[in-house]
Amino acid sequence: MSKGRLYLIPSPLGDNAPEEVIPAGTLQILRSLEVFVVEELRSARRYLSKAGLKGHVESLELHELNEHSTPEDVQALLPLFDKGDVGLVTEAGLPAVADPGASLAALCHEAGIEVVPLVGPSSLMLALMASGLNGQSFAFRGYLPAKTEERRAAIRRVEKDSATFKQTQIFIETPYRNDALFSDFLSVLSPGTLLCTAAGITTPDERIRTATVAQWRRQKTSIGKIPCVFLILAR
Amino acid sequence: MSKGRLYLIPSPLGDNAPEEVIPAGTLQILRSLEVFVVEELRSARRYLSKAGLKGHVESLELHELNEHSTPEDVQALLPLFDKGDVGLVTEAGLPAVADPGASLAALCHEAGIEVVPLVGPSSLMLALMASGLNGQSFAFRGYLPAKTEERRAAIRRVEKDSATFKQTQIFIETPYRNDALFSDFLSVLSPGTLLCTAAGITTPDERIRTATVAQWRRQKTSIGKIPCVFLILAR
Repeated sequence: MSKGRLYLIPSPLGDNAPEEVIPAGTLQILRSLEVFVVEELRSARRYLSKAGLKGHVESLELHELNEHSTPEDVQALLPLFDKGDVGLVTEAGLPAVADPGASLAALCHEAGIEVVPLVGPSSLMLALMASGLNGQSFAFRGYLPAKTEERRAAIRRVEKDSATFKQTQIFIETPYRNDALFSDFLSVLSPGTLLCTAAGITTPDERIRTATVAQWRRQKTSIGKIPCVFLILAR
Repeated sequence: MSKGRLYLIPSPLGDNAPEEVIPAGTLQILRSLEVFVVEELRSARRYLSKAGLKGHVESLELHELNEHSTPEDVQALLPLFDKGDVGLVTEAGLPAVADPGASLAALCHEAGIEVVPLVGPSSLMLALMASGLNGQSFAFRGYLPAKTEERRAAIRRVEKDSATFKQTQIFIETPYRNDALFSDFLSVLSPGTLLCTAAGITTPDERIRTATVAQWRRQKTSIGKIPCVFLILAR
């Protein structure tokens, strides 16, 4: 049995000071660690420095885990836990949700290493809270297809599922495609379906609005190239 | 257009000091507010006091919104926003996700009142992070049916959906039924399906473990009567 635990350490969604969106309890554990697995060295160093490790960052032991890592690379991280606790830090928000860190969490369970999730900002849940849509049943589906015809067909299927199961459907999109997706939602969805756009969550640009598709259509609105979560609920 | 905004204010999942799990940015806004909509007066007063309003709680304006509230009761809260900002506090975790507060958030969107979600602990996302299961596609389905035969049939359907859509399925249960649900999972699910139990998240009793159903069956395990999130991923 390894001595160390895997701490999952969230990071801010935007340029916020860590204290604004990361609880003191999370920051305290972050500051106590000396070994981290990170998605990108440069931005992780910047975050760890802002989060209270300024001046100590050069002496920390950082290991990369990203989309280029092989299963063998992940396996090779296991001996780190023989020495003590390890922190996992990924880009923007919760680690190990939709990023390569999940493979390390999974491997820790197989190896009997304790996995401890720490509190921080989740753009999906912040969007869901603020949307006013059904939070008793919801599904996150990640990205819709990039090609227009496939995307429109997927939107139709998803709207049908939403109506059948009274389930809020949640999506994200690469920021430069936000307005193309938004425009497809407005052309394809039924007028009575509720659509929420939650852009720039926790940042000064935050703009969250829920309205029916008919109401959205009556306005000239665009989202622009900032991170946005889209939610729909068919009625 | 109303002057005030609706701030959605999370609360701790257990008996933690608020500072441990609620960011300073959230607490700062909480402390600046004088009008709150709360799920239960007594526990909300206790939380607001611990969160930095000690000595001021008696002078705050608190309004109740809970499962007994009618649509007219929710509507009657709207004039509060003419005077200024309002905080929404519900029991344990994120407000307006699976509680009556969602109806107030929805009404605010209709009335053109800005809804601002603040960061705090989400038992669902903390469980999902720590599970190591698929976070690129997941569905929260709330409670399964209470009657054994219906519940077992529902588990079979959900396992099938999980396999078809490669989608992590997330459930909660009333704590006194945890072990009955857990035992049904072990009897009904396929041996290769991954099952995560995430109990007592963020509390001293926290215990999160992911294993195959076959592995769980080989052990004598029980969860007990503490809040638990269940996650399954069929393979």
